[in-house]
Amino acid sequence: MSMIERGGEEAENVLDALFPKVGRAYRIGITGLTGAGKSSLINRLSRIRRDKGERVGVIAVDPTSPFSGGALLGDRIRMGEVSGDEGVFIRSIASRGSDSGLSSCADELADVLDAFGSDVIFLETVGIGQQEYRIGFSVHTTVVVLVPEAGDDIQSLKSGLMEIGDVFVVNKADRENASRYADDLRAMLKLRHSSNGWCPLVVSTSAVKGEGVEELDRALLDHRSFLDREGGIAEKKRSFIRNRISMIVEERLRENFWGNAYIERKMDELIDESMNGKRSPYEAAKILLAAFMDGKIGE
Amino acid sequence: MSMIERGGEEAENVLDALFPKVGRAYRIGITGLTGAGKSSLINRLSRIRRDKGERVGVIAVDPTSPFSGGALLGDRIRMGEVSGDEGVFIRSIASRGSDSGLSSCADELADVLDAFGSDVIFLETVGIGQQEYRIGFSVHTTVVVLVPEAGDDIQSLKSGLMEIGDVFVVNKADRENASRYADDLRAMLKLRHSSNGWCPLVVSTSAVKGEGVEELDRALLDHRSFLDREGGIAEKKRSFIRNRISMIVEERLRENFWGNAYIERKMDELIDESMNGKRSPYEAAKILLAAFMDGKIGE
Repeated sequence: MSMIERGGEEAENVLDALFPKVGRAYRIGITGLTGAGKSSLINRLSRIRRDKGERVGVIAVDPTSPFSGGALLGDRIRMGEVSGDEGVFIRSIASRGSDSGLSSCADELADVLDAFGSDVIFLETVGIGQQEYRIGFSVHTTVVVLVPEAGDDIQSLKSGLMEIGDVFVVNKADRENASRYADDLRAMLKLRHSSNGWCPLVVSTSAVKGEGVEELDRALLDHRSFLDREGGIAEKKRSFIRNRISMIVEERLRENFWGNAYIERKMDELIDESMNGKRSPYEAAKILLAAFMDGKIGE
Repeated sequence: MSMIERGGEEAENVLDALFPKVGRAYRIGITGLTGAGKSSLINRLSRIRRDKGERVGVIAVDPTSPFSGGALLGDRIRMGEVSGDEGVFIRSIASRGSDSGLSSCADELADVLDAFGSDVIFLETVGIGQQEYRIGFSVHTTVVVLVPEAGDDIQSLKSGLMEIGDVFVVNKADRENASRYADDLRAMLKLRHSSNGWCPLVVSTSAVKGEGVEELDRALLDHRSFLDREGGIAEKKRSFIRNRISMIVEERLRENFWGNAYIERKMDELIDESMNGKRSPYEAAKILLAAFMDGKIGE
């Protein structure tokens, strides 16, 4: 797994070889703010799935996740309730400098868990910024975990989160305004334009007490059945593959571009010219791109 | 400003034309988790700077920021204390689907505020994931805002945050373990390898009460003086330009690639082949890249 995280040709050859075995696992993305209780929910859900005899994989891409053990370097650690269970494999990855690095690495680790026989894989991500938009491309079901704070109303929800959730969890449901929050959320989701006919479910839970988690598991299975019925599984697979190819292509394209000696030299010249006000970064970018596209590369 | 956010050629022509006027403003990045009090701090700092007669720009790229007004669509809104003051311009941008989109858009909006005479620009970002790694490339001073929770110790800090901060704020300093947390942070920062000789400052604040904010402002000025003395301003400008050119190039490169009819057609074929297990996404990516690099484009 560490080898996959390091990336490079070796990792790629392995992933390439594993590819025919990838595709059996059902992938569930769990996204939401730090402290929303994502890890506790995954912990509970894992136990339910283990009781059914499923093999469970967990990949946490939230560097602040308890799965990361609060350590400066994310690595494989134990998770309270399900630790020591050979049927659960947990991997926590620290975030990386580049976005595609992070994202594709998580997906690739999921491929490994998939190829080695996981039945279900939970991907935990922090739902802030852009990540949540991308998670929909690499999982079958997206769970958005929300915690109503006192005074919060549903209007304050980010539109991005509304659009990606297949299942919404209102966690810490014992808080004061939680049930009104869940009702408002249901009302708002009814207005949402659903592209595939699925009406998102809202489940109230208390992850710490374990309340509502069985219902959440049923909601996950409902969404899976829906996808099965409507041809959504093949559609998802198509979008996974498209996403994966795009990621690889874009990473390579960047490597080809910036790894080129001519571009590197030219870049330094152009930065100097921009520093002197002789060129804008826009002009500089145009010149570099023209050189690249005209095949000056290698000169 | 909306036109810049929309992007495209029109936006670019404007930014290109503004470029010679860009570079006067001092840019300060304020990063930290949601709820850490970044907006309150910016509010307080803005008032201090206004009292000194400076023109202040604020760009919030945190979609959950109070500057976003809790609305589903981020847009310009009022900020309690400094609203109605003509010397303060606030812009909140919602996060976008693509990372470069988000980041470059914030930087470009900062360029506009810069060209139109802002003396100081605060960029508020959420410090989770990758963003914090990038913020260092587009601001002069990076402020990391931390809030010690009961039981938190400094070991749980993400290494990424430790590396980017020029100034650290321990906000909500009236909390129980805040002063020990600040002391531990200072001790840890002393061990940090500093590439340019700057030793990061730690300031304790209570943004809501306004305590410690004058001291924070002095810390910001100290870092600025340090950069001035050590040639760091020109170095920063160089890195801004490098970063900007890279962003533009990578965006264009992606557009050129995916906007090509041959690639689009070939992509669909290759996805079909991957669905059938005839090719892996890695092979597919290689084929697309080879076609692009060999100039099949336009066929």
